[in-house]
Amino acid sequence: MAKAKPILGITMGDPAGIGPEIAAKAVAEEEVYKICRPFIVGHADVMRQASDIAGVDLQVRAVAQVAEAGFQHGTIDVLHLNNVDIDSLQPGKVSAMAGNAAFEAINKVIELALDKQIDATVTGPIHKQALNLAGHHFAGHTEIYAHLTNTKDYAMMLIAENLRIVHISTHVSLMQACKSVKRERILKVIQLADDACKKLGIKSPKVGVAALNPHASDGGLFGTEEQQEIIPAIEAAKSSEICAEGPLPADTLFAKAKAGVYDVVVAMYHDQGHIPLKLLGFSWDKEESKWLSVTGVNITLGLPIIRTSVDHGTAFDIAGKGTASPKSLIQAIEYAAKMASTPTSK
Amino acid sequence: MAKAKPILGITMGDPAGIGPEIAAKAVAEEEVYKICRPFIVGHADVMRQASDIAGVDLQVRAVAQVAEAGFQHGTIDVLHLNNVDIDSLQPGKVSAMAGNAAFEAINKVIELALDKQIDATVTGPIHKQALNLAGHHFAGHTEIYAHLTNTKDYAMMLIAENLRIVHISTHVSLMQACKSVKRERILKVIQLADDACKKLGIKSPKVGVAALNPHASDGGLFGTEEQQEIIPAIEAAKSSEICAEGPLPADTLFAKAKAGVYDVVVAMYHDQGHIPLKLLGFSWDKEESKWLSVTGVNITLGLPIIRTSVDHGTAFDIAGKGTASPKSLIQAIEYAAKMASTPTSK
Repeated sequence: MAKAKPILGITMGDPAGIGPEIAAKAVAEEEVYKICRPFIVGHADVMRQASDIAGVDLQVRAVAQVAEAGFQHGTIDVLHLNNVDIDSLQPGKVSAMAGNAAFEAINKVIELALDKQIDATVTGPIHKQALNLAGHHFAGHTEIYAHLTNTKDYAMMLIAENLRIVHISTHVSLMQACKSVKRERILKVIQLADDACKKLGIKSPKVGVAALNPHASDGGLFGTEEQQEIIPAIEAAKSSEICAEGPLPADTLFAKAKAGVYDVVVAMYHDQGHIPLKLLGFSWDKEESKWLSVTGVNITLGLPIIRTSVDHGTAFDIAGKGTASPKSLIQAIEYAAKMASTPTSK
Repeated sequence: MAKAKPILGITMGDPAGIGPEIAAKAVAEEEVYKICRPFIVGHADVMRQASDIAGVDLQVRAVAQVAEAGFQHGTIDVLHLNNVDIDSLQPGKVSAMAGNAAFEAINKVIELALDKQIDATVTGPIHKQALNLAGHHFAGHTEIYAHLTNTKDYAMMLIAENLRIVHISTHVSLMQACKSVKRERILKVIQLADDACKKLGIKSPKVGVAALNPHASDGGLFGTEEQQEIIPAIEAAKSSEICAEGPLPADTLFAKAKAGVYDVVVAMYHDQGHIPLKLLGFSWDKEESKWLSVTGVNITLGLPIIRTSVDHGTAFDIAGKGTASPKSLIQAIEYAAKMASTPTSK
């Protein structure tokens, strides 16, 4: 008997953003059902409205638990959290109600995954200001997941085209990021990057470790972190049979990674990884003043559960118009299904 | 009478690198003579050897001063500095002799430009280790030019495809770069960026100013530099009628700049600008383990003279093989000719 397709819990994100409509578009794709059993965690009425906005032919069925879900293409099961007043919900507006609904969905999907009722979680875009208005003070999904799963060592992996990048730090000042470049953390992130690649089906991943300083400090001429922190971490990784290389000058590293030289790159700070990813994954339409295409997936590594996510925001400026692309969400679903299906040796 | 084409002094860079052969290839192009009057500052025998290596049909004529140059396509005039022992010169090897020859050529070309015997300078790639071995302790060309022209406020502009990027700091540690993000410096660099675009023929340049911290610090949540330094500098630039915008989150800024939204970007540190430039301008051949194409031009702003340069190194691994591409050098020549030909209001 073939292994059952993984059950994926997908949050619709902030109900006032593009999350619900891209979720509707994504689960309307028959291809999605060939790789997983998807259902939505959120609000049934919001999803009904979103299906109309998206112009997809989708029956929305509210369920109270995963066991009730039917996973039939054409009908989307929504684990209904009764936390949105649909009449007062305004597309593109920041509100505590929407922020709270987004948070509760994340909380629920994590609970289901920890309880092994589902195999992986996929998250739609949330709005940080709304989240904060609702009293949930987190920098983003990654921090919520770490907190709710009691995870200390985690890292953000971003994927666009053939670039896979894991970050030493993310939502801290650049000055603080420099101070976070410490050998223990670097070694941990190299291990997480290596492990994630294996879960994505890459047998012997090649890990490219970026330098912090320009020209990898040119032998210590500008900066000490390469010698004192990064090189010792790489040596330690190598001694545990991880194929790690570096520290590599960041400016040429990503051009090489794009060419397939490295399976994954360890970036020393947020923008070092995000600049190349968005340059390759995002495309801006100057005439229309909007993003033409937005691809890329965000995966949180180090958690006891699988979490993948879109790599874009709530796009309040186009929310409710039905024009948002589900591409990034579909990719996030594909990665979650892949990771949930790959046998691990652990 | 049409304005005479500008005279360009081109250094051949480190004689052991690819500089001489790409210079030979570049001046062998008839198109180059349509926009300028080029000559080489370096060593006549090295250039003869380089012409053979490059496989171009070029007569090399040693001259002692610019006034002797004929500027006829097919014959390249070399302002001969008798500073290389050609028999002991080894392609791809670091040596004090080669480092010193490279330095003396830079020194000479700057002298000619300051003396207005030439209209602009274009530099080939040098090797920092060789330079240091020869007792010239500089991080690179930019610093040599600043020193020899007694320039305090200067900045590095890099160009690849339609990205133009000017940097607040370059060859310093990232920690030091964070500390260099100060309003006076930012304002100065915005002015230099605006001025350079005008010299390149852009009438009303739009200047995109990058943030230092991720998400432009999200309103001060991670980092204070946006509020305290960058915003005041942008406001000051606006009040002097420069069209500056920012601070813009760096990860999406470059995708927008690539789409043509900004004529020039002010980057807060070396890698912030170099990562997107090399990702777009460089292409790596994984099978052959070498750069397939290397485009991009480096321009030093703020000097009393014009200086453009290749945006790549000496490539010692392929020096002497005749395979190096002159593309970046030809682009550097084009930019120098353009800047020397654009009438300025000053």
